[in-house]
Amino acid sequence: MQPLTILKIGGKLLDDEKQLSSALADFANISTKKILVHGGGKRANELCRQIGIQPNMWNGRRLTDAPTLEVVTMVYAGLINKQVVALLQSLQCNAMGFSGTDGNLIYAKKRAAAAVDFGYAGDVEKVNTHLLMTLLKNGITPVFCAITHDGKGQLLNTNADTIATELAAALTPHFAITLKYCFEKKGVLLHPQDDSSFMDKIDMEGYQQFKDSGIISAGMIPKLDNAFTAKKAQVDKVVICGTSGIKANEGTEIC
Amino acid sequence: MQPLTILKIGGKLLDDEKQLSSALADFANISTKKILVHGGGKRANELCRQIGIQPNMWNGRRLTDAPTLEVVTMVYAGLINKQVVALLQSLQCNAMGFSGTDGNLIYAKKRAAAAVDFGYAGDVEKVNTHLLMTLLKNGITPVFCAITHDGKGQLLNTNADTIATELAAALTPHFAITLKYCFEKKGVLLHPQDDSSFMDKIDMEGYQQFKDSGIISAGMIPKLDNAFTAKKAQVDKVVICGTSGIKANEGTEIC
Repeated sequence: MQPLTILKIGGKLLDDEKQLSSALADFANISTKKILVHGGGKRANELCRQIGIQPNMWNGRRLTDAPTLEVVTMVYAGLINKQVVALLQSLQCNAMGFSGTDGNLIYAKKRAAAAVDFGYAGDVEKVNTHLLMTLLKNGITPVFCAITHDGKGQLLNTNADTIATELAAALTPHFAITLKYCFEKKGVLLHPQDDSSFMDKIDMEGYQQFKDSGIISAGMIPKLDNAFTAKKAQVDKVVICGTSGIKANEGTEIC
Repeated sequence: MQPLTILKIGGKLLDDEKQLSSALADFANISTKKILVHGGGKRANELCRQIGIQPNMWNGRRLTDAPTLEVVTMVYAGLINKQVVALLQSLQCNAMGFSGTDGNLIYAKKRAAAAVDFGYAGDVEKVNTHLLMTLLKNGITPVFCAITHDGKGQLLNTNADTIATELAAALTPHFAITLKYCFEKKGVLLHPQDDSSFMDKIDMEGYQQFKDSGIISAGMIPKLDNAFTAKKAQVDKVVICGTSGIKANEGTEIC
């Protein structure tokens, strides 16, 4: 099967112009067909504060009321997406920026309010693999922000790691996929303060033990849950890595 | 030749939810292949004010410094573009939102500072007609916001009427194009306060006379200049109209 690389970038990486440029240059150099997914947390929080909206988080996930949805749509789908696409274009990578509503590429369902009301948060229901494959076949490198839609005119906020996971799961029957979640650490760390302590690999059993002992906690839990979801969906290779893991074979591989 | 409709929507139409929905419903019902171009002035001004940037205009055109470019990128490419696409998707129109940097669809050059420094304003140099035609062939309805790029990583702000004009001019060898600039009036008015006084048609000579006599002034001048540029570029049919002119054959035709 034809190889496909799906790279998620997020965290502090997006806020540091130099690191971002270097990561995008490495991404542009990947010779396989490829898809980029980006988050964009900090800048959205800044804009929220500037216009007087209090960012509301729960376990590392954003609670999205209507004004916050407007802010994340502006920052993710507008500012960051277009800046990333323009940079990739300058690197001769024929990038095209998308939210899930564009071409109905990612259709989602508003999460029902339960113990926590996530507001306009969307859980992915379907990826339009046919259109995505047409784009890839035409030499396009899709760049996804973390905005989806419900098909009824409503935009929804969806976690960027989840977007990467769902894209990989949906495209797995058609490509030999390498899925990399790239963030500010070098991988899953044994000692959270020591970046060199990243594990080469982790399996479900190890993950459970590290969770129980508190070594893996907070924002790493949804990230690893996403990674294991992808692995379970038969994605060939799933890696959590730092920027050095974009071109090199470095980081924590999910087994 | 296959027909293609290019519709530009702008002005107060974008700020009125009900009018916008109705305009988009009429657009979705157009049976030919089609492209939508939207502006988004008022909302960008609001956000500028909210975050403490003074909007700077010159003859109806925005002077775009770096912070203003960020705002228009957020509002045009993010908020308005994705809301419009989501609405069109809900109307079974397979819309896909683009800025000029996406797929290098519209490449522009930063306008050199002269008597007026327009800042990050882009003049269109080239439309990627090949990719645009591939998208149209695949059933996609492109929705353009008024952001372009210079190919070197710099986003640029470009007048939305100009985007519509340049798309029409570039696609004219391949389609029989109807280009409609839709705004809050019913067409080019003989008496600016009387919406029923729109002219059925206007030619270059008449335009010159109306300009000299002051009947056509201010923001109507760049709009008509755009319309005549399109006509000169052999675009089949060029019309300035109100929302009623989207589905009906109503408005001022450029001769």
